[in-house]
Amino acid sequence: MIIGGKEDRTDNKEILHKFAALAGGLEQPIMIVTAASTVPGDLWDMYRQAFDEMGATQVTHASITSRAEAEDDMLAHRLAQARGIFMTGGDQKRLMAFIGGTKVERAMRSAWYDNGACIAGTSAGASGMCTHMLAEGKAELAPEKGAVHLSAGLGFVSRVIIDQHFSQRHRIHRLLSAIAQSPFLLGAGIDEDTALIVKGQGISVIGSGGVTVLDCRHAITNIADVSRGDVPQMLDVRLHLLPSGASFASPADAGPLADFIQYLTDRTLEHDHR
Amino acid sequence: MIIGGKEDRTDNKEILHKFAALAGGLEQPIMIVTAASTVPGDLWDMYRQAFDEMGATQVTHASITSRAEAEDDMLAHRLAQARGIFMTGGDQKRLMAFIGGTKVERAMRSAWYDNGACIAGTSAGASGMCTHMLAEGKAELAPEKGAVHLSAGLGFVSRVIIDQHFSQRHRIHRLLSAIAQSPFLLGAGIDEDTALIVKGQGISVIGSGGVTVLDCRHAITNIADVSRGDVPQMLDVRLHLLPSGASFASPADAGPLADFIQYLTDRTLEHDHR
Repeated sequence: MIIGGKEDRTDNKEILHKFAALAGGLEQPIMIVTAASTVPGDLWDMYRQAFDEMGATQVTHASITSRAEAEDDMLAHRLAQARGIFMTGGDQKRLMAFIGGTKVERAMRSAWYDNGACIAGTSAGASGMCTHMLAEGKAELAPEKGAVHLSAGLGFVSRVIIDQHFSQRHRIHRLLSAIAQSPFLLGAGIDEDTALIVKGQGISVIGSGGVTVLDCRHAITNIADVSRGDVPQMLDVRLHLLPSGASFASPADAGPLADFIQYLTDRTLEHDHR
Repeated sequence: MIIGGKEDRTDNKEILHKFAALAGGLEQPIMIVTAASTVPGDLWDMYRQAFDEMGATQVTHASITSRAEAEDDMLAHRLAQARGIFMTGGDQKRLMAFIGGTKVERAMRSAWYDNGACIAGTSAGASGMCTHMLAEGKAELAPEKGAVHLSAGLGFVSRVIIDQHFSQRHRIHRLLSAIAQSPFLLGAGIDEDTALIVKGQGISVIGSGGVTVLDCRHAITNIADVSRGDVPQMLDVRLHLLPSGASFASPADAGPLADFIQYLTDRTLEHDHR
């Protein structure tokens, strides 16, 4: 469950309710991973209250403020047994600096891959899911060469770069910068209060915004020839807009979106990258 | 010469210099059409000063604040003889309300079509050049059905909808709204201080921004089935980004941009629409 940040936590809580449902229900063990944030206590308080109001009974905090904590056997065990793991916002570089390659990361992978737990990430937690993670980059008025930096993410999503707060922060050019440089990767921009759900062979979109998919695989561009900071020419970028409610059961029925769904749902891919 | 607004008027004046050159030089008769603006005197003062500083010698004001003035024979005659006609910003609906179908409009068409004068428009003056003019529409965070209203423009540009202040005002969704509803039209978003130059069989881009071309002709969308205000699903929109310096001599060498250039340069098209 890939969330674009600012999901509703006080009103209808549509996305959090869906997360709990995908975790198996409000009685299942759910853990909140606040490692991306410099104010983990505040976020934990906020999500604890939101899930309390929803009637969830087994929501606990995975407090990780160092790599040492991310190597804690007890914490890793609890995460591996969780049915839902929710990564909060903050800074995806901080998230990866603390949990990348640790027992906590392996436990989350095991929960998801071996046990079918629902892994959710919002904002930084969404970006961090990618193998090639959008680490930082200003939202410029044009896709400037070198404006975006990638780094190694969790690898739960492969062949796709996730960006979040997408329409609200006008990040289309930043995402275009990233995929123009790495055109074998697709780009997915998730709006605020919006979730892209990957389940089985299909995907769906819920919440109040949409998901923008950008595909430069067939684009004709001079990015290799322009200087750092220059704006490349880009012809034939493919853009797909998935509003809330969009749903595809499998790549087979998705036309020009087939590869995007294939990349998101093919669990053999991420192992190529680890 | 289609300008996205806020072209430099005090510093390098790159776009104004190019306009003067396309008009045949600084000694040629140039007219400033301020009909789109509610402060025509202020705009005339600004452009007069800018062209004075450039050394232009025959720049005059086409002051049009009513349809009656736009039927003035003397003014129409001066416009027909001008080598450069520059339409300022303001509101494109005001521009068309005053000059649409008048002697002034016919004189401008004659200057361009019969005499090869350079016609330039910036901001509202750029939007007004289209046969199907983007009249108004808020820049929303998603392309909402019905968010954009078209109306009849000057018809100097056919089969393409122009939007301006494009990246600065985050208008991609507004332009997508327009072409999703009318997919036989291409969309061109011009950034501020940026000009799309159409000359002979070719196009080029100058200034400090870029031109974004959107093409929904092959898109798969449910816009016909969603309600007003809803966000349609849109798959396979084609996006082209032309930075400053981009240049295509003819449609033949432009690959996926061939039709865009064909539409802009084919002077038989606009007559289909008049």
